[in-house]
Amino acid sequence: MKKEKGLLIVLSGPAGVGKGTVCSALRSKNTDIQYSVSATTRKPRAGEVDGVNYFFKSHDEFQTMIANDKLLEWAEYVGNFYGTPVDYVRETLDRGQDIILEIEVQGAMKVREAFPEGVFIFLMPPSLAELRKRIVGRGTETAEVIDARMTVAKEEIDLMKMYDYVVENDAVELAVNRIRSIVTAEHCKRVRLIEKYKELVEVE
Amino acid sequence: MKKEKGLLIVLSGPAGVGKGTVCSALRSKNTDIQYSVSATTRKPRAGEVDGVNYFFKSHDEFQTMIANDKLLEWAEYVGNFYGTPVDYVRETLDRGQDIILEIEVQGAMKVREAFPEGVFIFLMPPSLAELRKRIVGRGTETAEVIDARMTVAKEEIDLMKMYDYVVENDAVELAVNRIRSIVTAEHCKRVRLIEKYKELVEVE
Repeated sequence: MKKEKGLLIVLSGPAGVGKGTVCSALRSKNTDIQYSVSATTRKPRAGEVDGVNYFFKSHDEFQTMIANDKLLEWAEYVGNFYGTPVDYVRETLDRGQDIILEIEVQGAMKVREAFPEGVFIFLMPPSLAELRKRIVGRGTETAEVIDARMTVAKEEIDLMKMYDYVVENDAVELAVNRIRSIVTAEHCKRVRLIEKYKELVEVE
Repeated sequence: MKKEKGLLIVLSGPAGVGKGTVCSALRSKNTDIQYSVSATTRKPRAGEVDGVNYFFKSHDEFQTMIANDKLLEWAEYVGNFYGTPVDYVRETLDRGQDIILEIEVQGAMKVREAFPEGVFIFLMPPSLAELRKRIVGRGTETAEVIDARMTVAKEEIDLMKMYDYVVENDAVELAVNRIRSIVTAEHCKRVRLIEKYKELVEVE
């Protein structure tokens, strides 16, 4: 029988929303989800281990990876390159293990092209919820403040539409529980399971 | 802002799979989910309260409900009628509260026609998992036994394809947790949330 493949979970959202914090908290809770290891041209810091914290690469090696399509997505940040090695992701999924990528919105959209079956989670800043509460509950905010917030909210909603799920990061613990629930639910999705059982009854 | 509607959750599956047990366990855990109250022509038993355990109806009243399209689905069982009053379901959903229906497969398919946006969960008997394990792990079963099991499995898979989720009832506690995760995840689905936030930014 065909082994069920792991889930590719992509956690993304606007800068500063707390992706790293949520991802770390998720990791500390749930050992069933593998954390993707990025490739980088940045030098290792004290205690960082190659293949664990990052795959440390020279600039030449990184460029070769780009040229050979070995990176799902990549970006430059303060003179260094960061990217997601596709082989590591594929090998993890093929072992039947879930893997989570914590990346920026632009990178997430590239991953979607390569893995449309992935689970794309948009981490929403709590400010939007706050905004919502304020607008609903009162009516005291100045028009300018509301305008500025509306602009941000609109931009965020525009990104949201590319995702499968929206998780509010109102509290790290709550956000982590929602993400864990999403992973459990995705494993129960009939479309993911039907092939498994189909093969079972077609064994003979 | 438009209030988010509740989720209609339909728990179904083959007879004897343990829908009632799982539903009761879910109820005892999660007070956020309303349990649908069925209409019936059966006489109340000691302690049963009208509008709580059932809506108790005469045969005439029940026939009138059928004629007036007031039942989402109904069935006859040992001379009595049982059905799901649509008003009760709609009113609960409009209040923004989730409601769960525990019904037979035929009824579930009728509910799907009226509520395509519902969350349809197929509770799978553990015997299928067992079967799977046996076929994979050994090879000692007689062909006849395997045949009979395959037939059942095939029928079940045929029903499964009408559902959104498949939950294995290997243990009540596990099944309940999976269902709770599905409900949480469904509330995080972008397609359900986007309208809410769209309306928010279009307030002005």
